[in-house]
Amino acid sequence: MDQMKVIADLSVIPIGVGVSLSKYVAACEKVLNEAELDIKLHAYGTNIEGDWDAVFAAIKRCHEVLHEMGAPRVSCVIKAGTRTDRKQTMDDKIESVKKKL
Amino acid sequence: MDQMKVIADLSVIPIGVGVSLSKYVAACEKVLNEAELDIKLHAYGTNIEGDWDAVFAAIKRCHEVLHEMGAPRVSCVIKAGTRTDRKQTMDDKIESVKKKL
Amino acid sequence: MDQMKVIADLSVIPIGVGVSLSKYVAACEKVLNEAELDIKLHAYGTNIEGDWDAVFAAIKRCHEVLHEMGAPRVSCVIKAGTRTDRKQTMDDKIESVKKKL
Amino acid sequence: MDQMKVIADLSVIPIGVGVSLSKYVAACEKVLNEAELDIKLHAYGTNIEGDWDAVFAAIKRCHEVLHEMGAPRVSCVIKAGTRTDRKQTMDDKIESVKKKL
Repeated sequence: MDQMKVIADLSVIPIGVGVSLSKYVAACEKVLNEAELDIKLHAYGTNIEGDWDAVFAAIKRCHEVLHEMGAPRVSCVIKAGTRTDRKQTMDDKIESVKKKL
Repeated sequence: MDQMKVIADLSVIPIGVGVSLSKYVAACEKVLNEAELDIKLHAYGTNIEGDWDAVFAAIKRCHEVLHEMGAPRVSCVIKAGTRTDRKQTMDDKIESVKKKL
Repeated sequence: MDQMKVIADLSVIPIGVGVSLSKYVAACEKVLNEAELDIKLHAYGTNIEGDWDAVFAAIKRCHEVLHEMGAPRVSCVIKAGTRTDRKQTMDDKIESVKKKL
Repeated sequence: MDQMKVIADLSVIPIGVGVSLSKYVAACEKVLNEAELDIKLHAYGTNIEGDWDAVFAAIKRCHEVLHEMGAPRVSCVIKAGTRTDRKQTMDDKIESVKKKL
């Protein structure tokens, strides 16, 4: 296995910075975009597609950036899926479900 | 608090039914649609918006339906967010981030 | 299916109440205890075992209590596992893994 | 920030290998132990404490090992918390809650 591909989902909560979190989420979007990952923001997180190492380096960078922005604590939830039987993109996953609706 | 509104995210994994899960995810989409909830499928789950009781009744029904379809085990991950300071829809959340990009 | 048993895991983050969250987590522990559920606190959440309806009623109550304590936003992550092939407790799950170590 | 400490929680589901998952969970426990991380198995995952890079390298290795054991798909859920205001261990977190019960 050279590079393990992953489809991930990330939601990040900075703690101790008040009730409005959107500027912190926006900062993470920028980190993920600068990492040249395929991403798609949704209402409770961001889908991310790419090589495992690149995806998780970007997620680490999100934590660092939120701390640099002043968040004393950052908690995230990551879902990560890998498969070796075949290639599958984020769009493939969605299409596969929609075909069966 | 009459009805507590919730924005949730659900991903469901039936266990012991092989490697292709899309027909089970599609069955859950139908359950959520029949419950007349606002939903949006993404590549690692489904965003759901509605009253707490309606949302969680539908999630319970997803587990029941997957068992009825033959899955001996079902594992789900739910993220659920409530707020009392103001109303906010799923679209509001996404717009709020996009404005800051 | 009369009562569907569930083994769940709950972690709750009140947002907008500062950096120390332990008193809110303790309040949730009390809610879960008063619901007479089997629970076990760990370093990133609480395992909960019981009937689906009782477990999710208690989780809803946790959100309500944290709002009553002053949290304008509450975000939780729930993992929930159900199985129809056999009974299994939280201790069974842990023993089953430990036997294979 | 030299090494960012993290308290994490990992649950892993191999997909397409049948209904019994404990041997796969045990294999992950071995990976985490060999990485010399502080870990604590619970009924819905494993708490992990260590340097960010070491923790996430071990989580990647878990995915690789499960694929090597024959799982065509692996899905995991990771919760990860970092803080810059003070040091805190997994035991500290639990004690902090228990003192308030």
